[in-house]
Amino acid sequence: MSTAWKSRFAVRTKNIKSSAIRELLKITQKPEVISFAGGLPAPDVFPVARFQEACRKVLEVNGHQALQYGASEGYEPLREMVARHIARYGIRAKAENVLITSGSQQALDLIGKLLINPGDRILVEAPTYLGALQAFNVYGAEYVSVQSDHDGLRTDLLEAPLRTGPKFMYVLPNFQNPGGTTLSEGRRHELVLLADRYGVPIIEDDPYGQLRYEGEHLPPLVVLDRENLRRDNGYSIGNVIYLSTFSKTLAPGLRLGWIVAPADVIAKFVQLKQGADLHTSTFGQMVAYEVAKDNFLDEHVKLIRRVYHERRDVMLEALKKYFPPEATWTHPQGGLFLWVTLPEGMDCNKLFEVALKENVAFVPGDCFYAGNSVKDSCRHLRLNFSYGQPEQIREGIRRLSVAIKQQMRELVATHL
Amino acid sequence: MSTAWKSRFAVRTKNIKSSAIRELLKITQKPEVISFAGGLPAPDVFPVARFQEACRKVLEVNGHQALQYGASEGYEPLREMVARHIARYGIRAKAENVLITSGSQQALDLIGKLLINPGDRILVEAPTYLGALQAFNVYGAEYVSVQSDHDGLRTDLLEAPLRTGPKFMYVLPNFQNPGGTTLSEGRRHELVLLADRYGVPIIEDDPYGQLRYEGEHLPPLVVLDRENLRRDNGYSIGNVIYLSTFSKTLAPGLRLGWIVAPADVIAKFVQLKQGADLHTSTFGQMVAYEVAKDNFLDEHVKLIRRVYHERRDVMLEALKKYFPPEATWTHPQGGLFLWVTLPEGMDCNKLFEVALKENVAFVPGDCFYAGNSVKDSCRHLRLNFSYGQPEQIREGIRRLSVAIKQQMRELVATHL
Repeated sequence: MSTAWKSRFAVRTKNIKSSAIRELLKITQKPEVISFAGGLPAPDVFPVARFQEACRKVLEVNGHQALQYGASEGYEPLREMVARHIARYGIRAKAENVLITSGSQQALDLIGKLLINPGDRILVEAPTYLGALQAFNVYGAEYVSVQSDHDGLRTDLLEAPLRTGPKFMYVLPNFQNPGGTTLSEGRRHELVLLADRYGVPIIEDDPYGQLRYEGEHLPPLVVLDRENLRRDNGYSIGNVIYLSTFSKTLAPGLRLGWIVAPADVIAKFVQLKQGADLHTSTFGQMVAYEVAKDNFLDEHVKLIRRVYHERRDVMLEALKKYFPPEATWTHPQGGLFLWVTLPEGMDCNKLFEVALKENVAFVPGDCFYAGNSVKDSCRHLRLNFSYGQPEQIREGIRRLSVAIKQQMRELVATHL
Repeated sequence: MSTAWKSRFAVRTKNIKSSAIRELLKITQKPEVISFAGGLPAPDVFPVARFQEACRKVLEVNGHQALQYGASEGYEPLREMVARHIARYGIRAKAENVLITSGSQQALDLIGKLLINPGDRILVEAPTYLGALQAFNVYGAEYVSVQSDHDGLRTDLLEAPLRTGPKFMYVLPNFQNPGGTTLSEGRRHELVLLADRYGVPIIEDDPYGQLRYEGEHLPPLVVLDRENLRRDNGYSIGNVIYLSTFSKTLAPGLRLGWIVAPADVIAKFVQLKQGADLHTSTFGQMVAYEVAKDNFLDEHVKLIRRVYHERRDVMLEALKKYFPPEATWTHPQGGLFLWVTLPEGMDCNKLFEVALKENVAFVPGDCFYAGNSVKDSCRHLRLNFSYGQPEQIREGIRRLSVAIKQQMRELVATHL
């Protein structure tokens, strides 16, 4: 390491470990490996032709604007479109409540920057989204983890941790990453009531909400917060900041996400956004608007649902067929992931190495836990079902079952 | 302000003032106002047709890759292109030394994140780039300012401030923003020697280096650092991190900049970039590569130089013709800006209000000073000459001279 710089690294960078996973995942890019590791949308559903047409039109009609600096808040028609779009889920917002971010990851970074003082505790689900932990760690976050089950965050365990005064709660209610679970309607009501009672606001991260393959859409926390608590002046006293993205419905390569919040909180985010990257690509925003408009996005989401629904079913069937009876898994009603729990004593990191020899990859579950919050975190795997073709999914699950059975035999042998 | 959130804002956000300038500049967007305030490239030089063709080709040949997640480091062919491109200026780098950022502004943010502990002093020029101060402020930076003159940073004044142990120096050697001045070759040598002697590394920000309209290209600090100090293993012990961007040569709307640093420092930046926005738009990077390749960028930069050279000359002539003899200004050899100094007692913020009535705008000079470092900071204006058409530049300078003369008369009247 070049000494001139290393000795000057800020204290906050000590919270950032070089990700072993990241290095391991590079191996999984070999063509012979079937990877369930990424969180990648299926490229075969990207609306490439529509993007072609949108680029042509944006550059022809508004080329000078598209290539020029733009507003830190985002491209106004896109902000308005987001506001209209979320209205169907009952979220009342105007353009002034919407900040366009460079992907949801930037939304998480701006939230960390705006809210977290070193040492602040953030209440998270166990397990929770790795990218949020990465974003918050750099601001010196500490964590209070609350367990989840098949109905999402266990709100019956919330009161004690809420009494310790966390800065905010970070929750993914729909088809959670990594768990694949959905917070039940009853718990949603409980959660917003508890948030209000203890004065602990909520970050509601909803990247997958539109990708539901069965069951009914459940109301977002940001809606219940207003309804339950009869807040009636828009977002002005809202207890919930809502995040979502175009990454899972249009294309992640554009890096387009958004934050919905009270206008005065958005104004503060805008100041931080200015210092962070000035604004998100004008061209990218205008192209996304052009692609999504005239209800194209709605029609396109229907296609994505059909494709991912099938792949989820293929994975669930293959798990049933190949996996040992001692393993269990979640049944996601939507999203991109499911979560496997292996018998006690199994180690997902050792399994990862065995699996790689079988040319199959996944993300070991322990990296989705904040700190050392939960024992047995090594018994889990996160599997993505959106990226692979059905035939690859079947074969990958078969290979993975070989690795699991091998490790189980070794485990039994050790205990003999 | 929504109380649930405001009371939770992190301490670091107190360093962020709501920018009065930002609000004022909104007024300048009225069509009747001639604005010298922005740092905007001329949209009439954007290579729109080439972008059309590049988008078509990228989506046709690599649509699935372009719309998918990409590497945090950046698109490999673009990193390689940057490395080749800067080699002509003597900067030796491989792709592994290059991180693609979401504009230079993100490079500044990542630098703040990597290096600045609250209370750290950063040595900056007086005046210096406002966007850097915005990026660094949020990490709790304090500043040591060193005066500049027509040859850039006054290296003869450096030793005392260097002895106080600043974390790093932040310098814009070419056609500085806002000063328009260029650091002389002699001072460049002095600067890298002093940096080495006092063990204070340098951030060299060079967004405008290619936009030189007269005189000879001067060696970058990152090159002198190696040559002077006989560093011979690439960047591995380099004392200088180098920043640049496509914003001024291709188009700012893409938000594409880059950091050149030792590979192990890049690796740390990559970790921070992951948490900040995962990666910069794959599509934007691939399109920029497609536009820039086959030496198009070099040819295009020649066009930009011709256009901006003419506009600079028009502004210099107009200043000579219209401005009172008590005003002085820099003679930029390149870049986008020049810097006007008004007689003692003049107040650029009051002048701004008078100028707006004349339908002309600029950026008041005092916002380019860190803290209260320099008295008389209110005597300066930053004028952009790249954006307006020649006729607008002449008329705008005429209007501005009316405002200045009016304020000078008022000043004399007050002192009578």
